Amino acid sequence: MLKLNLNIEQNNEFVEKRYNRFFMRTDISGAADENIVSNLKAILPPQTHIQLIQKRKKRIVVLVTKEHHCLGDLLLRCHYNEIDIEIAAVISNYDVLRPLVESFNIPYQFITHENQTRERHEADILEAIAPYSPDYLVLAKYMRILTAGFVEAYADRMINIHHSFLPAFIGANPYKQAYERGVKIIGATAHFVNHNLDEGPIIAQSVLAVNHTHSAEDMARSGKDVEKQTLAKALRLVADDRVFIFRNKTIIFES
Amino acid sequence: MLKLNLNIEQNNEFVEKRYNRFFMRTDISGAADENIVSNLKAILPPQTHIQLIQKRKKRIVVLVTKEHHCLGDLLLRCHYNEIDIEIAAVISNYDVLRPLVESFNIPYQFITHENQTRERHEADILEAIAPYSPDYLVLAKYMRILTAGFVEAYADRMINIHHSFLPAFIGANPYKQAYERGVKIIGATAHFVNHNLDEGPIIAQSVLAVNHTHSAEDMARSGKDVEKQTLAKALRLVADDRVFIFRNKTIIFES
Amino acid sequence: MLKLNLNIEQNNEFVEKRYNRFFMRTDISGAADENIVSNLKAILPPQTHIQLIQKRKKRIVVLVTKEHHCLGDLLLRCHYNEIDIEIAAVISNYDVLRPLVESFNIPYQFITHENQTRERHEADILEAIAPYSPDYLVLAKYMRILTAGFVEAYADRMINIHHSFLPAFIGANPYKQAYERGVKIIGATAHFVNHNLDEGPIIAQSVLAVNHTHSAEDMARSGKDVEKQTLAKALRLVADDRVFIFRNKTIIFES
Amino acid sequence: MLKLNLNIEQNNEFVEKRYNRFFMRTDISGAADENIVSNLKAILPPQTHIQLIQKRKKRIVVLVTKEHHCLGDLLLRCHYNEIDIEIAAVISNYDVLRPLVESFNIPYQFITHENQTRERHEADILEAIAPYSPDYLVLAKYMRILTAGFVEAYADRMINIHHSFLPAFIGANPYKQAYERGVKIIGATAHFVNHNLDEGPIIAQSVLAVNHTHSAEDMARSGKDVEKQTLAKALRLVADDRVFIFRNKTIIFES
Repeated sequence: MLKLNLNIEQNNEFVEKRYNRFFMRTDISGAADENIVSNLKAILPPQTHIQLIQKRKKRIVVLVTKEHHCLGDLLLRCHYNEIDIEIAAVISNYDVLRPLVESFNIPYQFITHENQTRERHEADILEAIAPYSPDYLVLAKYMRILTAGFVEAYADRMINIHHSFLPAFIGANPYKQAYERGVKIIGATAHFVNHNLDEGPIIAQSVLAVNHTHSAEDMARSGKDVEKQTLAKALRLVADDRVFIFRNKTIIFES
Repeated sequence: MLKLNLNIEQNNEFVEKRYNRFFMRTDISGAADENIVSNLKAILPPQTHIQLIQKRKKRIVVLVTKEHHCLGDLLLRCHYNEIDIEIAAVISNYDVLRPLVESFNIPYQFITHENQTRERHEADILEAIAPYSPDYLVLAKYMRILTAGFVEAYADRMINIHHSFLPAFIGANPYKQAYERGVKIIGATAHFVNHNLDEGPIIAQSVLAVNHTHSAEDMARSGKDVEKQTLAKALRLVADDRVFIFRNKTIIFES
Repeated sequence: MLKLNLNIEQNNEFVEKRYNRFFMRTDISGAADENIVSNLKAILPPQTHIQLIQKRKKRIVVLVTKEHHCLGDLLLRCHYNEIDIEIAAVISNYDVLRPLVESFNIPYQFITHENQTRERHEADILEAIAPYSPDYLVLAKYMRILTAGFVEAYADRMINIHHSFLPAFIGANPYKQAYERGVKIIGATAHFVNHNLDEGPIIAQSVLAVNHTHSAEDMARSGKDVEKQTLAKALRLVADDRVFIFRNKTIIFES
Repeated sequence: MLKLNLNIEQNNEFVEKRYNRFFMRTDISGAADENIVSNLKAILPPQTHIQLIQKRKKRIVVLVTKEHHCLGDLLLRCHYNEIDIEIAAVISNYDVLRPLVESFNIPYQFITHENQTRERHEADILEAIAPYSPDYLVLAKYMRILTAGFVEAYADRMINIHHSFLPAFIGANPYKQAYERGVKIIGATAHFVNHNLDEGPIIAQSVLAVNHTHSAEDMARSGKDVEKQTLAKALRLVADDRVFIFRNKTIIFES
């Protein structure tokens, strides 16, 4: 990088042998511009995909229902710059989390789903999101199933926290399922959302030991900590441009 | 316990509120005999189930196929009394693990499944097991599906190690499934075997972090450590009479 | 408990064999009053210590310096009743965390240590705390060393979060020490404060993997999550009256 | 690498910013020879240290005292090629582990320390080791303190498993120290041995939760599993040439 007067801070590589692909992330300091892309294109095979990302705070819109734990955690982390993300707005189908959000001086929009078709409700939400031009949508315990159309609008840019160790307990009420099955470990999964519910590329997973003394409600309560940590971890990785999506999986250059 | 000249070393209790059951395990030192059971029956409700278990080394027969890791770990642990279990014999449908087993002076029986019906093969195995009168059968990576008849013969006395974090990846080749799904954590489950494959009461589960650099083969290799630790943990709990089965779940009084 | 018309919800016992002590915690529902204590005293050895604790929300005063992460986490958890604790007030030797605290409608007192003797500063703090009559003082990253007199005033009622895996890295700047030593795991410890700095009874500890890519600053940043989780776990146990102190150790009946 | 007809399987890099050093590990397949080193020397700064390591099974000599758990685990793993290491011989100051070792057809040498000066005993051990020309010495619970001279003879080539989470509980009887302190987590550390006891570069650390019910003996028993896993992990990394030593720390390119 001497020619371009740049400095490589960190370099990560990965060879995906099964599909014969090569992935590289290079963290550069200095006045990098599109010249570097031109230079690289000149020497690399023509099908190479090159992207120059200028480091900047990512902007997100958060969708929630009634639960505070993931949202509260994100509000604090973003407010104090623990994650390099700005929460542009919070949108909910209930009005209960408004005081929490407004205490951080962030706009809160209540868009009820009552007496609305799913399509009408989603259209209203999309319309509310649009002015913020977010880099990502974050579903921080948004408990509504989304249509393919909504998902399509933010393909590869919508992140969900699922309250189970996917693919265990896909679908509704995973803690109840976990209790019924008598498992000894529960977990949470942060993933990109795609057309198949709970089946998008996984970014981060964490687990927690449980035992016979835990009711489904105990598991739900304990699980909240794992959910918020897992979502925060995923968002930090995404905010730092460390996550590549390839064939329904993620390649993550953690450090 | 003063009247009976016994000493309570440890006492554990659990109230299962959903089904309104009470479980208790009392570890007694001293010359306890059936008198204590009579005494307890006299004061407890008639439907109470009371069992007096004299502490003794449990005897197991281990079924394996070709993989050495769980078996080798058990051979060492039992030989050095890390687990209070005696391995009476090892039975396999292949002959490859014979030298390992015989180096510990334990009988090894090779009972091929080739050119045999499943029923015939299982009948031969049951016949081979019978003389050892084991307390438990342990499936230490025995890679054959068992018939309901075989399972019935050792109901609540057969323990399997499954190479996934159940109920994720039920069935064959869980590491390949895990790789395909792109999960970030894999695991293992030790459980009692019942009529539904991989669905018996879970005794112990453990997990291991993986990432995009792990192929299915890497996961299988790393997973071996988790498998053997999980099986050993489950067997120690069972050997110490700490595991109760209730409605397809376990109640485990760990300490 | 039939005579007294009470119901035992949970019972835990522990025999400390080394010092020949017996500990028991019984969770009773129903109209328990001091009669139960009289009844128990009549049948138990005279030296038995019996305490009847009516379930109620505990009240704490939190001491902080400038770091927000533990405080913010506690504010959210207590506000939403995740922990059965009321934060009566927050006191700090800096004024930086005031907006955060006041957004939860909790009093914030700034008591500077500048141009004050340690004794004068502590006397001011004790005076500020007194009107709140807290059950516990919580040091949520309060970065000042306390005198024996201050500690004495809240003996067995002051809880600190230390940013290392005690007894590793006692004293100042544990992350720097951890970085210098090249450890592969860092951690946090929540403990009661006694006269010897960082040596009181440990309530909870947690750890986090690190590697050669982590600077001391990276460790400090990652460690914040472990710190706040560990403190929250300890406070939940204390709030639920599950922690006994015995000879500079804790006996904790988790479930 | 096209010119040299080689293929890069994996590449890892690390910039040590504090001391301004750059580390790189490149895994190459193909007929690499010293030409590649000459080629690299021609283009890299003169002070660059370049080493070409041909992939081969490493040879170790294991020193033990009386405990079987780490040794048994290594014997199994190396026998079945789980770790790419050949155990050339086992040397002990007791004769108790001979049958275990010899069942794997590995030479066992009993060199008593009784009626010997420390120097004489170590000289005998060094003489016994010499014919095996090991790549590494492994102290698998060898419970004798080594002199500086012995350490010097295998500088950066001697790996120890310490039964604590260093730097906690340096020195003798760490489980007893852990019990006395009332910690809630114990651990193990695999490290290179240098002149300061327990202070060499750390390769791997693992931990295990404990509680008030665990005596020092219980901790020692449970800790054995962590010890053997930690040692095995460290040896796998070393065997695969993934560990660099730099200024009393390790840089480990795990994958």
